Amino acid sequence: MRIGIVGATGLVGEKVIRVLEERNFPVKKLCLYSSEKSKGTKIKFHSDEIEVATLSKEVFKNLDIVFFALEENLAKEWIPIAQKECVVIDKSSAYRLDKNVPLIVPEVNSEKIKEHKNLIANPNCSTIPLVVVLAPLQKAFGLKRVIVSSYQSVSGAGKNAINEFLYETEVLACGEEIKKETDSVFSAPIAGNIIPQIGIFNKQGYASEEQKIIDETRKILELPDLSISATCVRVPVKIGHSEAVNIELEKEVDIDKVVKVLKAAKGIKVFHGCDPSNRDAPVLPMPIDAEEKDEVFVGRIRKDMAFENGVALWIVTDNLRKGAATNAVQIAEEILKIKGEK
Amino acid sequence: MRIGIVGATGLVGEKVIRVLEERNFPVKKLCLYSSEKSKGTKIKFHSDEIEVATLSKEVFKNLDIVFFALEENLAKEWIPIAQKECVVIDKSSAYRLDKNVPLIVPEVNSEKIKEHKNLIANPNCSTIPLVVVLAPLQKAFGLKRVIVSSYQSVSGAGKNAINEFLYETEVLACGEEIKKETDSVFSAPIAGNIIPQIGIFNKQGYASEEQKIIDETRKILELPDLSISATCVRVPVKIGHSEAVNIELEKEVDIDKVVKVLKAAKGIKVFHGCDPSNRDAPVLPMPIDAEEKDEVFVGRIRKDMAFENGVALWIVTDNLRKGAATNAVQIAEEILKIKGEK
Repeated sequence: MRIGIVGATGLVGEKVIRVLEERNFPVKKLCLYSSEKSKGTKIKFHSDEIEVATLSKEVFKNLDIVFFALEENLAKEWIPIAQKECVVIDKSSAYRLDKNVPLIVPEVNSEKIKEHKNLIANPNCSTIPLVVVLAPLQKAFGLKRVIVSSYQSVSGAGKNAINEFLYETEVLACGEEIKKETDSVFSAPIAGNIIPQIGIFNKQGYASEEQKIIDETRKILELPDLSISATCVRVPVKIGHSEAVNIELEKEVDIDKVVKVLKAAKGIKVFHGCDPSNRDAPVLPMPIDAEEKDEVFVGRIRKDMAFENGVALWIVTDNLRKGAATNAVQIAEEILKIKGEK
Repeated sequence: MRIGIVGATGLVGEKVIRVLEERNFPVKKLCLYSSEKSKGTKIKFHSDEIEVATLSKEVFKNLDIVFFALEENLAKEWIPIAQKECVVIDKSSAYRLDKNVPLIVPEVNSEKIKEHKNLIANPNCSTIPLVVVLAPLQKAFGLKRVIVSSYQSVSGAGKNAINEFLYETEVLACGEEIKKETDSVFSAPIAGNIIPQIGIFNKQGYASEEQKIIDETRKILELPDLSISATCVRVPVKIGHSEAVNIELEKEVDIDKVVKVLKAAKGIKVFHGCDPSNRDAPVLPMPIDAEEKDEVFVGRIRKDMAFENGVALWIVTDNLRKGAATNAVQIAEEILKIKGEK
């Protein structure tokens, strides 16, 4: 396959390159594109060094699949051009809710890929792990209500956000006061603090990240009327988004059965019980352990005391991998499989 | 009043001294007690320097009110002795659920203080801000269901926890790996990480901090059957506990009315709308701003999409002040008021 990556020098673009490499995706040719600023950067791919080029309208006709890792506005400008020539896998939010665009998490709804018209959308990095966990529960018990509170890492806001966090960590370590610049990524200090806002607020008081979780979960699970609420919070963690999730199920809940269902589900690593090798400490999913992993980590599985048929649990995922790059490459693998079947 | 503080060199004990000073509590004599280790330490109070003594059974007969800021086991050992002689205001969890012990948040249930038998309990630092917010909503709309996810600062685990966090922050700033010692306060790195466990797990899979929120909220609000669930998470923040709260109300919800009710309630500072002096940024309660404040900060007030009559909101409080010391001193002030009325 002739593969293109647009936004190749961003956090997600770079991670897509690494994941293609690791998973030995059959790449005949890899073309990397970025903004003018990063033009000429050389990036390793297997034994090659690939020079990053600037994007032009002509490049797409020589590609089979192109990964887009741009922000929404740029995605809207370029994707209509690209999809005339090749299959686009988009990481932005530009087309996620478009009825004509499948919104895919392969563990959940890979069968929808077939409906694509040269454009497949990747969900938000906090939606992906959530639906990986909700889908098997939906199948086994039926979903009635979902409440999510997130603990999202700074890498979700890009490279500059990581640099800002690391710089502020140094300031904090020196015991000095963190001062914000007018061009800061975060409006408030993030080291030693948490910020209960990700994205812009709508009239209902929901931040865009929260609305994305709500809308995308409903679309992916095909439950347009699902009762679901979200609070998204930025925490001083470099990589790894965590979520406290409270779920009301249709059927009576038996926690052992919930654990069994989640253990049998694709893409999930269940943490349940204690670790005898570590003073019998409970096994807990934490961002520090999820980094560079592809599974959705799930732990703290217990009956939710607020509902008659409720389950509460805790999710952690590497937001750059399964939350973004790995999910996109998995979609490409599914496309390959479909082509093979034809 | 002759006042004693047991555990005077701990985070909460020290803060009680500062709050007594700030609020000009009428102290005739202040006696400070600690473990053998801190004996002889001198602590400023107004213009005096008070030497910390070790505790003995005889001290209580010369005191009117004694603040206990010890851990549960020590509290259980000493409080039965103390309460024979003077009024005990206890910060530990030892007697909170005892039917004979009022569990007090003055904004919520100060009238219960009168029932005390020389012992009044302070709720947990994450319960206090929660009930300050829930009580006025209960009165105006009725409570049906409460779901809490917490973002708790390291200071909730004491002085050593703060030192561990600051040390790890330095390690993180140097780009080195954080190593845990066998005597670490936290079982995993807390700088650059979050830990979804506060306290010990019970058989139902709830950590003790979560069970405290559930049990204490039910007792304080006098709703023994309230549907309530909690997930407690330690975050790399020095001071300030935050909570994402989802509330189902009995009556139909109008957000403007909720805001009005909260604005009129005691002890709450409501953050709602935008700040025209700061590029019209939304006003958000954050730990960094709540430090050294006594109010419970409430923001992100919006309709909860998961419930027909739901409200979602965000709470931040200085866990050492309103979450502990200030609440205890407020109780002492109420005792004084009752004495004055007699």
